[in-house]
Amino acid sequence: MPPTLDQAALDRLFLTARTQNGWLPTPVSDAQLRRIYDIMKMGPTSANSCPARFVFLRTPEAKARLLPALSPGNVDKTKAAPVTAIIGYDARFYDLLPKLFPHRPDMKDNFAANARLADITAFRNGTLQGAYFMIAARACGLDVGGMSGFDNAKVDAEFFPDGRVKSNFLCNLGHGDPAKVLPKLPRLDFDEACTLL
Amino acid sequence: MPPTLDQAALDRLFLTARTQNGWLPTPVSDAQLRRIYDIMKMGPTSANSCPARFVFLRTPEAKARLLPALSPGNVDKTKAAPVTAIIGYDARFYDLLPKLFPHRPDMKDNFAANARLADITAFRNGTLQGAYFMIAARACGLDVGGMSGFDNAKVDAEFFPDGRVKSNFLCNLGHGDPAKVLPKLPRLDFDEACTLL
Repeated sequence: MPPTLDQAALDRLFLTARTQNGWLPTPVSDAQLRRIYDIMKMGPTSANSCPARFVFLRTPEAKARLLPALSPGNVDKTKAAPVTAIIGYDARFYDLLPKLFPHRPDMKDNFAANARLADITAFRNGTLQGAYFMIAARACGLDVGGMSGFDNAKVDAEFFPDGRVKSNFLCNLGHGDPAKVLPKLPRLDFDEACTLL
Repeated sequence: MPPTLDQAALDRLFLTARTQNGWLPTPVSDAQLRRIYDIMKMGPTSANSCPARFVFLRTPEAKARLLPALSPGNVDKTKAAPVTAIIGYDARFYDLLPKLFPHRPDMKDNFAANARLADITAFRNGTLQGAYFMIAARACGLDVGGMSGFDNAKVDAEFFPDGRVKSNFLCNLGHGDPAKVLPKLPRLDFDEACTLL
């Protein structure tokens, strides 16, 4: 195995990759979605909890159910994207721990007895998996555009009516339109974000 | 740019990479920490909010301040790791938005006026950046071991006494000891975690 990723791979994942606001009509296949999932699912989560859940909206009819929940600025790009993913988390993820973390059968009960710990674990680890998902999509040659400008309660009522899964954020997927990328915004310098002790 | 990452890169980031529980004495340099930061900082966050903050514990003296907050199972591996990162988030990240998101000067006030929105934005995006950090460390040839088994309030009191930064999770960094990797745990199948609409 090479000791580090090469420059082209770093560029694709992080350094020259850009959040997309417009989309080319190139389709995204179900096989691509399965490939992305099969990569991102290997990323680490606390107690292998794997709480993220994904709903892939692939048709105008499916997206029409989402549009009323979106902030106005997110409507047109969501309509144009080949696929929009709703990234949520299973608030009762711990029910699956006997399968996912079989050597510690007590873990399910620990979470079941502590709602605050369960909530924060689901949200933290479901969000880590959301990041893995975006990175894996880029690794597979797709562009992404994450969005948190929407009404979570509306999305939950429409797509997760039994209340078990909660929406976290949205992500458009496809091949971005380079003409609609915004100017690159600055980042914090190392010394603004990091402390060496 | 190649259309997708090659198998070796996918293996390094996700497919054969493993959470580490033991560490070889190979050191991690400050240059490596800066390189990881300079890669992960380019990952996307909502409104370019960049709320993650990192404290790198590089010495036994620095780690001694963390050990009393750890779950017992996390003590020995944290002592052995060349570097332990405290990954936190700035609860007042929005104070930096005039620099980070200069075309929308109203964004700072939107968050300042809505504590719940600010909290969830800081935690969600700080966690996305925590995932970018772990992937970037692997991209740079290091192993990682994330940990959420610790007392956040104790860590915050010790390392972030002014209350502005909140701890999120911890991550050991270095070169893992292959003898201490646990058996690979199962993941959910696509159809268990994903819905196609």
